[in-house]
Amino acid sequence: MTLIKRSLVTIDDLSYGEMEAIFSLADEMSAAIYQQSGLCQGKIMASLFFEPSTRTRLSFEAAMNRLGGRVISVVDTQATSLAKGESLADMARVVGGYADIIVIRHPWEGAARVMADYAGIPVINAGDGGHQHPTQTLCDLYTLQKERGSIRGQKIALWGDLKYGRTIHSLIFALAKFGADILFCPSPGLEVPEHVVKKLVAEYGGEVKKYPLQNQTVKRKESVPLDAIYITPSSPHQLAMMPDIDVEIELKTGVDVLYVTRPQRERFTAVEVAEDLKKKYPVVDKRLLRDKAFRKSLVMHPLPRVDELAYDLDADPRSKYFKQAERGVPVRMALTALLLGVKEVPIPKEAELPVPRIDYPRYQHDSALKCPNSTCVSVQATETKYIKPLFRIVDVTPLTLRCVYCEHGFEPKYIASSDWHEGKLENKKYHRADSHWVRKIKPENLIVFESAQEAEAFGFKPSHFAVRKSDKEP
Amino acid sequence: MTLIKRSLVTIDDLSYGEMEAIFSLADEMSAAIYQQSGLCQGKIMASLFFEPSTRTRLSFEAAMNRLGGRVISVVDTQATSLAKGESLADMARVVGGYADIIVIRHPWEGAARVMADYAGIPVINAGDGGHQHPTQTLCDLYTLQKERGSIRGQKIALWGDLKYGRTIHSLIFALAKFGADILFCPSPGLEVPEHVVKKLVAEYGGEVKKYPLQNQTVKRKESVPLDAIYITPSSPHQLAMMPDIDVEIELKTGVDVLYVTRPQRERFTAVEVAEDLKKKYPVVDKRLLRDKAFRKSLVMHPLPRVDELAYDLDADPRSKYFKQAERGVPVRMALTALLLGVKEVPIPKEAELPVPRIDYPRYQHDSALKCPNSTCVSVQATETKYIKPLFRIVDVTPLTLRCVYCEHGFEPKYIASSDWHEGKLENKKYHRADSHWVRKIKPENLIVFESAQEAEAFGFKPSHFAVRKSDKEP
Amino acid sequence: MTLIKRSLVTIDDLSYGEMEAIFSLADEMSAAIYQQSGLCQGKIMASLFFEPSTRTRLSFEAAMNRLGGRVISVVDTQATSLAKGESLADMARVVGGYADIIVIRHPWEGAARVMADYAGIPVINAGDGGHQHPTQTLCDLYTLQKERGSIRGQKIALWGDLKYGRTIHSLIFALAKFGADILFCPSPGLEVPEHVVKKLVAEYGGEVKKYPLQNQTVKRKESVPLDAIYITPSSPHQLAMMPDIDVEIELKTGVDVLYVTRPQRERFTAVEVAEDLKKKYPVVDKRLLRDKAFRKSLVMHPLPRVDELAYDLDADPRSKYFKQAERGVPVRMALTALLLGVKEVPIPKEAELPVPRIDYPRYQHDSALKCPNSTCVSVQATETKYIKPLFRIVDVTPLTLRCVYCEHGFEPKYIASSDWHEGKLENKKYHRADSHWVRKIKPENLIVFESAQEAEAFGFKPSHFAVRKSDKEP
Repeated sequence: MTLIKRSLVTIDDLSYGEMEAIFSLADEMSAAIYQQSGLCQGKIMASLFFEPSTRTRLSFEAAMNRLGGRVISVVDTQATSLAKGESLADMARVVGGYADIIVIRHPWEGAARVMADYAGIPVINAGDGGHQHPTQTLCDLYTLQKERGSIRGQKIALWGDLKYGRTIHSLIFALAKFGADILFCPSPGLEVPEHVVKKLVAEYGGEVKKYPLQNQTVKRKESVPLDAIYITPSSPHQLAMMPDIDVEIELKTGVDVLYVTRPQRERFTAVEVAEDLKKKYPVVDKRLLRDKAFRKSLVMHPLPRVDELAYDLDADPRSKYFKQAERGVPVRMALTALLLGVKEVPIPKEAELPVPRIDYPRYQHDSALKCPNSTCVSVQATETKYIKPLFRIVDVTPLTLRCVYCEHGFEPKYIASSDWHEGKLENKKYHRADSHWVRKIKPENLIVFESAQEAEAFGFKPSHFAVRKSDKEP
Repeated sequence: MTLIKRSLVTIDDLSYGEMEAIFSLADEMSAAIYQQSGLCQGKIMASLFFEPSTRTRLSFEAAMNRLGGRVISVVDTQATSLAKGESLADMARVVGGYADIIVIRHPWEGAARVMADYAGIPVINAGDGGHQHPTQTLCDLYTLQKERGSIRGQKIALWGDLKYGRTIHSLIFALAKFGADILFCPSPGLEVPEHVVKKLVAEYGGEVKKYPLQNQTVKRKESVPLDAIYITPSSPHQLAMMPDIDVEIELKTGVDVLYVTRPQRERFTAVEVAEDLKKKYPVVDKRLLRDKAFRKSLVMHPLPRVDELAYDLDADPRSKYFKQAERGVPVRMALTALLLGVKEVPIPKEAELPVPRIDYPRYQHDSALKCPNSTCVSVQATETKYIKPLFRIVDVTPLTLRCVYCEHGFEPKYIASSDWHEGKLENKKYHRADSHWVRKIKPENLIVFESAQEAEAFGFKPSHFAVRKSDKEP
Repeated sequence: MTLIKRSLVTIDDLSYGEMEAIFSLADEMSAAIYQQSGLCQGKIMASLFFEPSTRTRLSFEAAMNRLGGRVISVVDTQATSLAKGESLADMARVVGGYADIIVIRHPWEGAARVMADYAGIPVINAGDGGHQHPTQTLCDLYTLQKERGSIRGQKIALWGDLKYGRTIHSLIFALAKFGADILFCPSPGLEVPEHVVKKLVAEYGGEVKKYPLQNQTVKRKESVPLDAIYITPSSPHQLAMMPDIDVEIELKTGVDVLYVTRPQRERFTAVEVAEDLKKKYPVVDKRLLRDKAFRKSLVMHPLPRVDELAYDLDADPRSKYFKQAERGVPVRMALTALLLGVKEVPIPKEAELPVPRIDYPRYQHDSALKCPNSTCVSVQATETKYIKPLFRIVDVTPLTLRCVYCEHGFEPKYIASSDWHEGKLENKKYHRADSHWVRKIKPENLIVFESAQEAEAFGFKPSHFAVRKSDKEP
């Protein structure tokens, strides 16, 4: 297994062993950061930023420059030929002809996947809308590992906006892969989305136990808004064995790392913006760190911070957020060097932490089905000219499809089979997605519809199981 | 003849032999693209883009970086000191003191000429409004030559927006210089401008035959909107010898290359924008390429495309547009290396294709004459402080002046002589530009006026030939 | 004394000897500009421009590239994480972890000071609002020295906008440090601010004599708007010895350098904008240079120019403004190399020109005092979270505090002592700042208030000297 010529679109593209390989090369880079300038001589990185981001862009550009490579940049949006209606695929192929590696940040979810599909050279996702930002996760993990020795068995509290924080979702899956326990401490209303929790348990094993905030004591609620705990399957301490585990007790043993995030207000709905004004986003400050749970916690933050992380912690030795930012450079150097093939490191075997990749069945059919996520790359006017929607069937109870571009999951309302019984037209029926038919139709024959009209437009007639339960109720 | 320290403002700045020299160095660059990083060590390219263009800018910057040189960039407009009212000449002199070569894209036509006049270092025009984009033309020609072996005698169909496509005008003259035949296939209303056709025949020889679209069969009109053919003088097949040549027959022999362009909607007049909504810009797709004329045609496009070139052609082996973009890098490497003098290649003699440069007489007079092109650099408020309008007299029937900055041609209404007969005031007369006087006044004495009032303000009185024919008509 | 790891925030950060050292290295750079590309191999400059400036940015980036170093850039404003509410201190620490040196331009006065305080690497101020632009001053001084042999004893006329021209204020203090005489020739209404004149005399010695424009002869007023002269203490020619010195006589001896500036209209108040339309900013052109005073004057200008410097001077051998711009590159190369420590040069002793740095007492108190300058970095919402206001007491008659960030001086209205007599509450009184108490309270005990209410909010009661003189008047 090698990283040469591969792309990094989601953190799932990297195995545990591959991440360990990146970290070991990052150590090497870090130890002699001024001695790497011969590695990428003559190589070019195209840094394409279609969304504001000073920090991430500068970190990538610094990394490539430290390696002796060159950078050509596109910053922001109005100034680009995208304004002339160009597609991402065209841009990918053209820039792929100029450069040796592409780094892209884009507001559309799945944009980096499309770039990787068409560029012909390695592509690194530097953030695609609310979807993924895998190199941030690499930097987070690397910092964890350097500061705590190992990630396995650590207890990591995730704090703040667990709903929109793109770095958080990547981090959650990666922490599971590395065998950490996770404490979810959201700002009220910004809990981690259900689909993330489901994917976490389904794909990485382990268990999640919820502690609804309203059931907790007033005191606890105010200082530490813990609402769920994820226990890794590699942990000796299994929730199943201690059904009455208490949030208070759990916290008393102490949190190893407190990972704080800012409210992603730019992604809030109008309702959330209005509520946000009334509510108080919980602040991490000197006072909180005197709490028993956090007395020995390291504090991390992907930055930029707004008000959720007090300046009074900056001089505290437990604060690691500036180190975390600084470590982005050697990590990105290591990643770039490996993808370009100018360095190779042995990839350790994943003896202890085998996380099985589930091979979900594909769903690609000529029905009108489009990804319902309006920021998905696959539904943008310039991209529908060539992108065929493609999904994975990730669950049947309820039937859930996941877009392969933005990884957004959704539950279609109606289903049918392309292999209708004996090919007789009178058997060409559609059913509710929550009927037993969902388990009878083979995945390769499945057709889904968003509405009864849509199903009928494709020539299907309602079966006995086509009326939705709720519709039947008077 | 050498290219060292020269500028490239219009494609006419390069002889056939010089272009061949650039292509031969581009071959060398292309064959070992990672081995050129010692060539421009210590040299700096200033990349000044005052109009959006990702593609061209990245191509130049990639080229300079591949050569081991450095790039300093200005992207877009509002952010620059131009906002403080600075002139191009000042910017040229200042940046000329920082860098070794300048690449400029600017919305004003003739801007690159002004930069070249003042910078003191080589300047490359990367597009000046609707005027020229000579390196795009070099990339086009290089691709043609690589794909077809030679350009001479090839039959090239130009498709789409032949009116505003800046790349098209440069390409037309260059194709003539290389001895190709040209088929004009415009989108209706976007035909090649008359002044381009005139210049083509006047300066490069050959003939143009028109096939007005409305006279053609309905079928033909729909699939291939051919409206004129240019036959190079170097072609054995002369139109003059076959007066009844038919567009159908002409097409049947097959087109070698189909060069497609997007509608330059950003340059459309309000009327054209309105019409554009009703009309259909002709689309090049798999179906069209099944037409006998195009069965063996290579497809080229300067990109970005919008809808005029279907994605279904991308995988077709005849499609060369992504290769064309990729080849921009070695061509720009070669050009940059030659202008900077870090490489020299023998320039082949132009034995067979001598295109005589016509030395048109200059027109520079203290009359109020200004270039009538409102996007010409010479009429902009910041530039009139130092630019003196200068024209060439390129025709006398009708009298036509061409601005040396934007190369826009126009027909003044009135004329006079600065050397009026015997110096007597009663002989100080002005005449219509379409009277016989236009051939009697020596070019060095010619004064032109846009109106009778203007002529009289300069002290001239109307002659018998001062009333315009049309004015006489009742 | 060495420049390694130091920052350059204001021109006062450099001694005379240090500037001489920079100039001598600039000579070396200039003599072999293509041979320096090994010096900064592997080093990175972060070029952060939060205000438009093509010229300065390109000059710094060219300098770093000539040294073989690399540049990562942020251009303009909306595209940055500042939009996400990030503080300068955070940006400083993060970028300080990526790069080896930072160049910053920012609209807030004092922004570069904050960057320097937090970055952990050298910071160069490339302009902070209307405050300072010290490398422009270095380029000016270097040009002066190259063109005139020495700056000492030269007579320099400063022309145009002496109020808002940021380069002018830096230059004034530096000229004093180098022992030059200064003639102030402002556009009416744009005279040099009083606090600059005061600082000049207080810190650099010498004398300023005013020639109010309205007292001058009509002729003189029109051609040369001289309104004050500064005579350096190192000059043999002391104003004090010739009390009746006349502006006409002074000018007759001839000006060595005419330093022209453009009107900084973007900083004008609404009233000034309105007046500006009616008034004529004085133009420097061929005609003015025929004046006896300027016959031998070199003409300098920091560029960009608008209309205040005529194009007819460009070809004049006395014009040095394009040379001045060009020399910015070797000067910035020298400065960068010295701050990064890749070069060291002996710093000459300042034998003849000892300018004593005055060590003004600090004022930092928990009163509500904020810097009254609304563009000062210390009063911005994102920065008040961590910046504690800090001032220097620079004068007592009248009492004047100077903000250490923006260096804006202001006169508080009321004073009190934190060490009130015998600690008895009845002695806790406040007084007018212009009463004799200002000299009785020790600087370390001084508390200032902007209003009587503020003083009373802090528990002070009015003394007999608490009513302002003007308030007493009927």
